Amino acid sequence: MKIIGEKINGTRKRVARAIAERDAEYIADLARRQTEAGADWLDVNAGTHPSQEADDLSWLIDTIQAAVDTPLCLDSANPAALRAVITKVNKTPMINSISGEPERLQGILPIAAEYGCPVIALAMDDKKIPETSEKRMEVIRSVVAEARACGVSESNLYIDPLAMTLSTNSKSALVALETMRGVRAEFPEAHLTIGLSNISFGLPARSFINRYFLSLAMAYGLDSAILDPLDRDIQAAIRTTELLLGQDNHCLNFIRASRKGLFDPPAA
Amino acid sequence: MKIIGEKINGTRKRVARAIAERDAEYIADLARRQTEAGADWLDVNAGTHPSQEADDLSWLIDTIQAAVDTPLCLDSANPAALRAVITKVNKTPMINSISGEPERLQGILPIAAEYGCPVIALAMDDKKIPETSEKRMEVIRSVVAEARACGVSESNLYIDPLAMTLSTNSKSALVALETMRGVRAEFPEAHLTIGLSNISFGLPARSFINRYFLSLAMAYGLDSAILDPLDRDIQAAIRTTELLLGQDNHCLNFIRASRKGLFDPPAA
Repeated sequence: MKIIGEKINGTRKRVARAIAERDAEYIADLARRQTEAGADWLDVNAGTHPSQEADDLSWLIDTIQAAVDTPLCLDSANPAALRAVITKVNKTPMINSISGEPERLQGILPIAAEYGCPVIALAMDDKKIPETSEKRMEVIRSVVAEARACGVSESNLYIDPLAMTLSTNSKSALVALETMRGVRAEFPEAHLTIGLSNISFGLPARSFINRYFLSLAMAYGLDSAILDPLDRDIQAAIRTTELLLGQDNHCLNFIRASRKGLFDPPAA
Repeated sequence: MKIIGEKINGTRKRVARAIAERDAEYIADLARRQTEAGADWLDVNAGTHPSQEADDLSWLIDTIQAAVDTPLCLDSANPAALRAVITKVNKTPMINSISGEPERLQGILPIAAEYGCPVIALAMDDKKIPETSEKRMEVIRSVVAEARACGVSESNLYIDPLAMTLSTNSKSALVALETMRGVRAEFPEAHLTIGLSNISFGLPARSFINRYFLSLAMAYGLDSAILDPLDRDIQAAIRTTELLLGQDNHCLNFIRASRKGLFDPPAA
């Protein structure tokens, strides 16, 4: 299970302030802590100021790369900003994200192809999210076809089936899981990823919903997720589910995590 | 999800003492607390003294029925003991258990047929537990055929695929889950059940393994389990997984459980 650390995201107030104030230590600390917690990529989102996005992304990239050498996941729908910064990234970055929207496909797929980037593909079309897994699969089929046509291989696609909140549709986790099953069957080389926290929006005890949803999704073939690697409950869910799914030979990772205190009650 | 409360089990020291001393209040308390926690059946196991089993079972049944009217699950492999007590049980009891062993089948299936009892069927043969899900399915096919021949319907069978500990075989949860998938596909009217705690035997942080295994098993079609209904972590796993699997309309059960404090941290 690969983790895309979600914390360096300029749509969060505290991060937006750090970006505005060029508070390098705050960003470097988030980069280091997520890396120590096992993040395989660090999501880098400069927030919601299009005119500054390239500058802000550029500063974030410099700041993060001065602190860690974890690969980055450039989180932007803006092809101009991506092109402006991509050559300064040390290791081939992931791009977050494309969808079935023609504009986004045409703007971003050529960049992913040119630089050999893995790319997250959302199962939505022109900003609309299909309600059924069958319709999401239709969108995914067309995105995979477009990606191939542009020279992005199936194995570089990280397909996000989209988990909408259960609070407005009690079948929404099932729709996401069924979409994962469909992707696994139809595109065996593609990866699956998910933004974890939407599923519980508006409900109490959200962390319970998130961690069990992650576990079920792993059983349906999820092999990466955008999440908070500093969340111990989520890490415990990942270690335990890998153990149960036969992905932890001789239980070594689980036992090691246990010795490090991952399953201990939080300190009082 | 139906719960068979596991706590009244004479193989546990404290319960064995209560049986030996005819400590009715201790047993009644276990019956009441499991019932309040939502047990659909109460397992009744008199322990390991064959010569006393009928007497001990009889006393347990009287004691439990004086306290609650929850249906019982008579946990015995001894046909003579079962026949001696079954007529004093107020509500049709479940029987725990048969397996592919001819002796057990021949002794217990006629009782289940005569009294219309649901019966737990273990996926094992002559005391051997097949290693693969294919071989477990072979055993299950022959048990289902024997049961039908004796007049026990598929819908009265609660098939236990058997979860062996991960500590000696890191694929053992997968084997159990694949067996569940097989049962669901081949015997759609049969139920699935599981004794939850074996899966984690010999490992640290057992409750994490048990609760995530339960959640995954529910996604594979598990509709009942033998477990401790007083375990809050397990109850939280059940409520959360039912929510995720679309079995909780408008999230009402989850929200109600949250208001009752199920997801709160344990009191300090």
